[in-house]
Amino acid sequence: MQLLASYLSGSWSQGSGGKSALVNPATEAVLAEVSNGGHDLAAAFAYARDKGTAELGALTFAQRGALLASLAKAIHGAREALIDLAVANGGNTRGDAKFDVDGGAMTLSFYADLGAKLGSTKLIADGEPIQVGRTARMGGQHVWARRRGVAVHINAFNFPGWGLCEKLACALLAGMPVISKPATATALVAHKMMELFAPLLPTGALQMLVGPAGTLLDNVGPGDVVAFTGGSTTARTLRTHAKIVEHSVRLNIEADSLNAAILGPDVDLSSETGGLFIADVVKDMTQKTGQKCTAIRRVLVPADKHADVAAAIAERLGGIQIGDPSLENVRMGPLATAAQAKDIKAGIARLAEATDSIYGGTGDITPVGVPAGKGFFVGPVVRSTKDPMNCAPLNEHEVFGPCTTLGIYDGTAAFASAFVAMGQGCLVSSAYSDDRDWVAAFVGAAAPWAGRLYLGSSKMAAQSPGPGTALPSLLHGGPGRAGGGEELGGERGLQFYMQRTALEGDASVLKSLLG
Amino acid sequence: MQLLASYLSGSWSQGSGGKSALVNPATEAVLAEVSNGGHDLAAAFAYARDKGTAELGALTFAQRGALLASLAKAIHGAREALIDLAVANGGNTRGDAKFDVDGGAMTLSFYADLGAKLGSTKLIADGEPIQVGRTARMGGQHVWARRRGVAVHINAFNFPGWGLCEKLACALLAGMPVISKPATATALVAHKMMELFAPLLPTGALQMLVGPAGTLLDNVGPGDVVAFTGGSTTARTLRTHAKIVEHSVRLNIEADSLNAAILGPDVDLSSETGGLFIADVVKDMTQKTGQKCTAIRRVLVPADKHADVAAAIAERLGGIQIGDPSLENVRMGPLATAAQAKDIKAGIARLAEATDSIYGGTGDITPVGVPAGKGFFVGPVVRSTKDPMNCAPLNEHEVFGPCTTLGIYDGTAAFASAFVAMGQGCLVSSAYSDDRDWVAAFVGAAAPWAGRLYLGSSKMAAQSPGPGTALPSLLHGGPGRAGGGEELGGERGLQFYMQRTALEGDASVLKSLLG
Repeated sequence: MQLLASYLSGSWSQGSGGKSALVNPATEAVLAEVSNGGHDLAAAFAYARDKGTAELGALTFAQRGALLASLAKAIHGAREALIDLAVANGGNTRGDAKFDVDGGAMTLSFYADLGAKLGSTKLIADGEPIQVGRTARMGGQHVWARRRGVAVHINAFNFPGWGLCEKLACALLAGMPVISKPATATALVAHKMMELFAPLLPTGALQMLVGPAGTLLDNVGPGDVVAFTGGSTTARTLRTHAKIVEHSVRLNIEADSLNAAILGPDVDLSSETGGLFIADVVKDMTQKTGQKCTAIRRVLVPADKHADVAAAIAERLGGIQIGDPSLENVRMGPLATAAQAKDIKAGIARLAEATDSIYGGTGDITPVGVPAGKGFFVGPVVRSTKDPMNCAPLNEHEVFGPCTTLGIYDGTAAFASAFVAMGQGCLVSSAYSDDRDWVAAFVGAAAPWAGRLYLGSSKMAAQSPGPGTALPSLLHGGPGRAGGGEELGGERGLQFYMQRTALEGDASVLKSLLG
Repeated sequence: MQLLASYLSGSWSQGSGGKSALVNPATEAVLAEVSNGGHDLAAAFAYARDKGTAELGALTFAQRGALLASLAKAIHGAREALIDLAVANGGNTRGDAKFDVDGGAMTLSFYADLGAKLGSTKLIADGEPIQVGRTARMGGQHVWARRRGVAVHINAFNFPGWGLCEKLACALLAGMPVISKPATATALVAHKMMELFAPLLPTGALQMLVGPAGTLLDNVGPGDVVAFTGGSTTARTLRTHAKIVEHSVRLNIEADSLNAAILGPDVDLSSETGGLFIADVVKDMTQKTGQKCTAIRRVLVPADKHADVAAAIAERLGGIQIGDPSLENVRMGPLATAAQAKDIKAGIARLAEATDSIYGGTGDITPVGVPAGKGFFVGPVVRSTKDPMNCAPLNEHEVFGPCTTLGIYDGTAAFASAFVAMGQGCLVSSAYSDDRDWVAAFVGAAAPWAGRLYLGSSKMAAQSPGPGTALPSLLHGGPGRAGGGEELGGERGLQFYMQRTALEGDASVLKSLLG
């Protein structure tokens, strides 16, 4: 049995004490084990602070970008092995696995290019020079400066590859050393990436704790930052963690999100826009078995289109084979863990009390190619409600799996945006319409409740990535329930790892500081 | 006896139950009282959400800017009355009072001008359009959108006027209704401003709770924001407040700050730069009796200049009359409260255990024009240490009064920036030097530890506002110990009250949304 080691203080550490098993979620076969503790985490922080900070600080943005490019290349070189691990350990279909692995490499490449663009500047200008005195001599200039400290990354189980890469790309390009902790259950992909990355990076730039967090956060101090993706319960623990509170440690949280998709009243289902809407809803239910933080959970359709939308979605779902994702014809695998499957079944049961069944009942299925009774499977479930604004389970609880709920509405942008707001803050919501006035009214009222608004329309349908895809050039994060964080978004993604500082003084001195 | 009312839900509310007294800190004469509770705060939140949000949302940036201009005008119209209140209730000299009152008006005017510039746009563009698909047709655009919710402002005792105005200027211009809570002890200025502002603002735009916070924060929910200025103990309570944690309520904190001032090794004390340095140190000790969050607390001087710096500061301090600030010749008043005076004496005692006395001993003085034994007075105190990096009380504890400590150093930029970092995050630090290489080395290493770096030099000495003045065009806030917040900084000050959202879709649709 493989015992997955952590990469800490420049070497591989197997830890000690009790062990946790990593399994294949389709077959429940044990794939590897990991120690639950026994690592010197204080030493790892010191190593990052001493070695990592100095090594990264000696490099320009361009040089750090070149490092990211080398990581992307390493992923490409080991792509098939990584995909196999994602299929085995993540319950991913091959398509799901590519989405995770290629997404990680693509994000690294994007930030490699940004590094090249930033070149050898030490301070990034934020805005233009400002006159703050009587004459132009007395000036101000805001800059972004590299923070000194350690970036702690706590990643979610659903994207072990992409999650690792998108966080480390921003941190390393900004110049902060990283200690990354993948979710234990699906850590094989991240562990393999660490094996690939370790020889390519400067001393102390990247460390990885595989296994439970243990006392990891007890080591954070001034200057450090913590970026977390996961559930709201853990998010609350982080927000109130004694060391985080004591040192005002910067915390970026991406948590639960009740993303909505809204079909505009102008859209015919047979149109390009209508087709995009149906395709996006079905994709978000089934891709990664619905385990995307950006997936559509709540759908709003005009009353007169409800029956057609329900039928179209049901027809698509009926053609999707569910089972062992290593089989070629299977288009949807299991959930990643037994605990997730249990939570989702409970969430569907809660929804079932307040909604009608459109497809899949409460998710019981018989997967193909799996030993009887094995695997963490839940089938696609579509529920429906006539009163989506007052359906508490729909608007309060994220069911993190292949489940969505249709609600009917009056077709107004006011209702649509109020429905987005009912989610109390989301990562993304989407509207499908070719009526610009309707879209403008929707955006104005919905924007404060979403980190991203995806506007589906006929002109972009052919090349849309769909709302469920987080792109490196656009912000990923959302207000309120979604955690209030911001990641990616091009240069914006570096800001969490840098300090915005106002420089004040002789304008010519300020100019010279920006080189 | 005047009972100060709160302005809540569109009318003045006197509250009920026990009362707290507001006193003249020079004479301890009681000036007014305030109820400790008895207000319907849930109703105030509902009033802000319903009325305030709608009223402010119906206005353009330009119209909201015009409102701010009317508030500034109202302050100018009542300037003498406000100054008198600040002198009586704040222990302010007339100069201190003008700094607070005029600073408030100036900040309102600044944001009024920004509103005019932003005009009638609904969404503020953040950066340029981005191509996110295969062709330019599929685009992205980041925008700032007005948040829907209530802005809760909890202000500090030291700037009842400026603190009120700088926070409300940003919130109201962004379009969020405000519930403001001044510190009880010095609330007379804020209360008077509320009387001036109430008739000028739309329904529900601004409310004020005068007295203890009570259950104020139990009413916050999704979309709301809380901005706090004050001590680190209260800051910790806010960070872990159940409602703030539950709803990921956005929190801006400006707390303790161990601001440093460093004399560069190239500077002769008789030069313009040297003169500016001495003047700024003395000003920050005595202006507002050292009760500025931006005041210099830690001073670094090259060893060979220590004696001259100590002598120059002592000479200036010796000429400053301390006593009842309503007297014309008095240049420094008392501390604002008995509790503050006690804390400062305790802080000086702690410093005294680890430092040598340069001036003022431990702060005992006999103030002029004050009844014997009355008033919350502490005299200016200068301490000194040969080992500033290892002087724990100096680098760990903010003495929020007329006290500063000189440390000697080797004159290197590396030492200077490491000393700034020892404060674990500050609002502002300053360096005085005409050696550009030294300044560049200092800025590169110190910038991540400060919200603002003030660079004193010969060319700007004649028109410098000093490091202790927060300007509306430059960010105010700092990392780590300083709370990790950001206020002001021109348009940056609006960002806390707005949501940054990525719009994704047909590029021509996105363009039309920005008007």
